[in-house]
Amino acid sequence: MSFGLDNLPYGVFSVDGGNPRIGVRLEDQVLDLAPLLHDDVFLEPTLNPFMARGRAVWRATRARVQDLLADDRCAEHLIPLDRVRLHLPIDVADYVDFYASLEHASNLGRMFRPDEEPLKPNWRHLPVGYHGRAGTVVVSGTQVRRPCGQRPSFGPSLKLDIEAEVGYVVGTGGTGSFEEHVFGVVLVNDWSARDIQAWEYVPLGPFLGKSFATSISAWVTPLDALDHARVPGRAQDPEPLDYLRRKAEWGLDLRLHVSLNGETLSNPNYRDMYWTPDQMLAHITVNGAPLRTGDLYASGTVSGVDDPGSLIELTWNGAQPLKSGQSFLEDGDTVTITATTPSGLSLGEVTGRILPATLR
Amino acid sequence: MSFGLDNLPYGVFSVDGGNPRIGVRLEDQVLDLAPLLHDDVFLEPTLNPFMARGRAVWRATRARVQDLLADDRCAEHLIPLDRVRLHLPIDVADYVDFYASLEHASNLGRMFRPDEEPLKPNWRHLPVGYHGRAGTVVVSGTQVRRPCGQRPSFGPSLKLDIEAEVGYVVGTGGTGSFEEHVFGVVLVNDWSARDIQAWEYVPLGPFLGKSFATSISAWVTPLDALDHARVPGRAQDPEPLDYLRRKAEWGLDLRLHVSLNGETLSNPNYRDMYWTPDQMLAHITVNGAPLRTGDLYASGTVSGVDDPGSLIELTWNGAQPLKSGQSFLEDGDTVTITATTPSGLSLGEVTGRILPATLR
Repeated sequence: MSFGLDNLPYGVFSVDGGNPRIGVRLEDQVLDLAPLLHDDVFLEPTLNPFMARGRAVWRATRARVQDLLADDRCAEHLIPLDRVRLHLPIDVADYVDFYASLEHASNLGRMFRPDEEPLKPNWRHLPVGYHGRAGTVVVSGTQVRRPCGQRPSFGPSLKLDIEAEVGYVVGTGGTGSFEEHVFGVVLVNDWSARDIQAWEYVPLGPFLGKSFATSISAWVTPLDALDHARVPGRAQDPEPLDYLRRKAEWGLDLRLHVSLNGETLSNPNYRDMYWTPDQMLAHITVNGAPLRTGDLYASGTVSGVDDPGSLIELTWNGAQPLKSGQSFLEDGDTVTITATTPSGLSLGEVTGRILPATLR
Repeated sequence: MSFGLDNLPYGVFSVDGGNPRIGVRLEDQVLDLAPLLHDDVFLEPTLNPFMARGRAVWRATRARVQDLLADDRCAEHLIPLDRVRLHLPIDVADYVDFYASLEHASNLGRMFRPDEEPLKPNWRHLPVGYHGRAGTVVVSGTQVRRPCGQRPSFGPSLKLDIEAEVGYVVGTGGTGSFEEHVFGVVLVNDWSARDIQAWEYVPLGPFLGKSFATSISAWVTPLDALDHARVPGRAQDPEPLDYLRRKAEWGLDLRLHVSLNGETLSNPNYRDMYWTPDQMLAHITVNGAPLRTGDLYASGTVSGVDDPGSLIELTWNGAQPLKSGQSFLEDGDTVTITATTPSGLSLGEVTGRILPATLR
């Protein structure tokens, strides 16, 4: 795990029940930005006002912090990580979830619609996505209560699952290019109740099977920190329409590590995704819908051929349980997702523990 | 049209480019609440902080305003409607759209999936819904630009449509009963690009075909003002599960009037809806997802047997054009939706005019 000078993700922290404010992570410490930089924007309880200032400010701030840290002029503003509480770093405006892994979409198609072609005819022509519930995005570490719902009989979900994803945080609004708008990257666990989802999702898509909780990492890694991990996106056939054509390399060589109660479940690499995040952003806005500061969009489950990012794929909907004997999440389970680039740079982890259902 | 003492909807207005603030509509005037009630919450640019105070405050405020108006003690704070500009009255948190008309869901099923049963197996068991884009909810009067997208060839939508709906504004967060949480009612036009929607919507639901704009009325009618229009919900078969069982009458006898360029298109009555708004709220929260102040959920298209609330139904997807010869919206068209209860109480209108597409 490396959170060195080349990384410096942003987060929101508090100490001893004080007001949440903005910091940058350096290894196992948090750099308190407001007193260091003499700017009240870092006293805000979310990154939104800082993000709204735009890319030039993001870059200048990052360069300044790197300089100050390199010159060792920050000691009095560094706080040990184990002394702080971390908060949801952004005020989420709209949350969109995509479905950008060819392997994941094909696997779920096979399971949800066994009598049809696994991919719908549109899948290779556009990044399929939908809006999720912004109000239930929570920060890593938040415990997640098992949802109840129609499965179709009513009760606690019996197929509670994870989706290991990479999310993009929009810094500035409007409609424009990826580099201009995207502030940084988070890890996402899009918790999913597969039994509720399977019953409800036709014809308008997932709703309660997803809306109970979506966890994101407490740390938002600036896009610039990931420059070294950029790779060409996966080849696409057919060639996408003009508005979806890639103008730069926005694939990321980012190895995810998904674990359940400390045991490795899977290690998918984000570079295998079919649709890249620049294409997703172009798609969201092509109908004229403007972005807003705080919009969050996620990749959909990151699954490779041998490394699925969800339990429903790993256990083939329960037909091939894990070694532990379980196929979906049990109460008390803890799921943790981390990610690392080839240079060893880490994204902040996203973790969560399952609480038993409360019957209503 | 009646906006008398029994109505008194809330809105956000400004005069001569001043700061937006909160008012109540009385016939063709706006009552400026902040100076009348000496409360700065009415100087806020959205209803959210006032709504967050909860039902007891909503009721007391309404009673006080009715008293003051009845006693003729408001003259100096009444401003002619034609002198004010109206703004989006709420800061929309999450936006959910349902699909609660049996006739609408059946009609669309027949058109989108001609080889299948029109209703999916889940439809009579739960109010089917999905999350829309909160960031593109706009106030009545905002012009709506024709969206571009994959239809599946790329270009301006050729099937731009309306959906006449009734929307519910959530005043206080948490999970609880309908009466406790819902502040009031708006009219909604959920603009829909049918060609974009038909191509994109499998398997995760509508996305860009809806996310370009959703218009709501500038006036939010308090739930209490609609007491006299409450009727039993439509009979349901099968009996819904416990959590969806109706505990009070929340059907509304509300006649919608949908017009295109001044000509009547349809007059559906909201009382014919299959799922009632209390059931929708129970459904949204049954998985534990809390509500937030500013959440908006809409009924889905209000269609009766002979009174569909969308052009795709009125023209059977273009097979039976209107008398004017058109089947979907043309550039320059204006659509206006109004609604009236049997006593003559009106909801604020929602209107919008179509601008030509901008090719990107």
